[in-house]
Amino acid sequence: MKEHVTVCEVGPRDGLQMAKSIMPTAVKARWIAAIAAAGVKEIEVGSFVPPKLIPQMADTEEIVRGALAIPGLTVFALVPNLKGAQRAYAAGAHGIEVPVSVSEGHSRANTNKSTEEQVEEVGRIVAWLGAQDRKVRVEAGCATSFGCSIEGDVPVSRVVRVASALADAGADAIVLADTVGYGHPDQVHTLVRAVRGAIGEKLTKLHLHDTMGLGLANALAGLEEGIRSFDSALAGLGGCPFAPGASGNIVTEDLVFMLESMGFDTGIDLDKLIAARLLLHEGVPNEPLHGQVPKAGIPRTYRAAA
Amino acid sequence: MKEHVTVCEVGPRDGLQMAKSIMPTAVKARWIAAIAAAGVKEIEVGSFVPPKLIPQMADTEEIVRGALAIPGLTVFALVPNLKGAQRAYAAGAHGIEVPVSVSEGHSRANTNKSTEEQVEEVGRIVAWLGAQDRKVRVEAGCATSFGCSIEGDVPVSRVVRVASALADAGADAIVLADTVGYGHPDQVHTLVRAVRGAIGEKLTKLHLHDTMGLGLANALAGLEEGIRSFDSALAGLGGCPFAPGASGNIVTEDLVFMLESMGFDTGIDLDKLIAARLLLHEGVPNEPLHGQVPKAGIPRTYRAAA
Repeated sequence: MKEHVTVCEVGPRDGLQMAKSIMPTAVKARWIAAIAAAGVKEIEVGSFVPPKLIPQMADTEEIVRGALAIPGLTVFALVPNLKGAQRAYAAGAHGIEVPVSVSEGHSRANTNKSTEEQVEEVGRIVAWLGAQDRKVRVEAGCATSFGCSIEGDVPVSRVVRVASALADAGADAIVLADTVGYGHPDQVHTLVRAVRGAIGEKLTKLHLHDTMGLGLANALAGLEEGIRSFDSALAGLGGCPFAPGASGNIVTEDLVFMLESMGFDTGIDLDKLIAARLLLHEGVPNEPLHGQVPKAGIPRTYRAAA
Repeated sequence: MKEHVTVCEVGPRDGLQMAKSIMPTAVKARWIAAIAAAGVKEIEVGSFVPPKLIPQMADTEEIVRGALAIPGLTVFALVPNLKGAQRAYAAGAHGIEVPVSVSEGHSRANTNKSTEEQVEEVGRIVAWLGAQDRKVRVEAGCATSFGCSIEGDVPVSRVVRVASALADAGADAIVLADTVGYGHPDQVHTLVRAVRGAIGEKLTKLHLHDTMGLGLANALAGLEEGIRSFDSALAGLGGCPFAPGASGNIVTEDLVFMLESMGFDTGIDLDKLIAARLLLHEGVPNEPLHGQVPKAGIPRTYRAAA
């Protein structure tokens, strides 16, 4: 019996929000369906932010409603605040991801709020959702946990404090995010242990970027610490507006290859996953497609979990 | 006191032999000097193979002689056979790398010899060099240790047998090479333990490729097993003629970034290392330059070992 690892595809949100062009809604819907058809069970399909700030996400309500029709798929959306959470609830999202920058400078630049104010916003979101009929999972992402392009080093003690505050605020799960890709494997070990020491199994997931090429090495360190859930983006789309020149999220295709090769079960068909790149390319033809496995081809020694 | 990790640059050999154009000798010499000036202490500068087979390496004798003038640099060359070893000795190389394919099919395709015949060749090389005045270090590389594009899986027991035979043949050091980049972190753990169980500290180094994007994750697994020496190539040059479409060696720049970030001392100045890419580009302008750290820029949180 193989151990399961959850791969949450964030390309439609974290990837497309950084894209230079806007993916047509119809293509986006087909792309998300193709990713789900490959066996991906969690997809962050968009974000409920003001369309004038991120026009790529203007169709998120329609995209969420469409994705809800895909059997077995857990539909996530990113929301920056209570208003976004209310829109996500209205659209029917199963879960929301609320980013909270651990770095004060990143928090101000990204949301015009302090870290503490954003933690309080999570509390308001949890309270409001708790008063509704339908349960919506609230994941709080500790952005810039591994360093910040604005502030530099982010102390472990500060990450622990913010993660604890978010757990106290009632978030269902806490995610450690290497928003700008500064993390290294030793740091993953240190940070996961420290945060788990404070909030236990509420720490569920890592959100890693491949900015410095260490994305999968960091994922390996997370696996070694018992983390069994990872965000990633097809073709490694995405990045951070405050880390110019940076490449994007860890590549879903390569991550799945690593996990399955190591004997974990992701439930994902690598061939079908790679085929979904065609729709991504159709929708945003000018975006570079990263990923080594798709370029080299799945090797003959690869054996996916049954 | 930081622990040292040796980074052996193989771009001038493993990288350039796959390049579509031939780097002019004068540029190659300046490129090698620039890599050494960044603090790299071991460079595989070329190979003593028939020029009609690999014309990129026709100037290896001249390149070796030039590199010997660089203070503190250990100059390695790849040799496929005794004749190559004799040429390397005559040129003054400090060390030679002799590849031996663990996979029989790869051995035949690459050298037209069986694995056993190539092990015997290593014995002849060791004997001949032992009779000369000057000591030359002999490293034997177990190619395709992590899988083969021709034969597929390569059994651990076979890698152990070949590594043991090479140690018995008198090689000073044994290298496990993921020639086609099929390896994954669990396999690194398994193979390093098995081979070390048989030959102990004669297993010194890993030669990893980033074909599937797992190169640095595999290096991390090697570090965890106590490996303190790695081959890599500037800008991730190189590949394998029998793995079409595959990308190259692990990227020296990203590897150094990971090692120094984790608190290891490589003795390498990352800024100077990245600057050496300019000469590589000058010499083979049509080759793609890989590497995430050079593209994103060294982050402000980076602290190199003093």
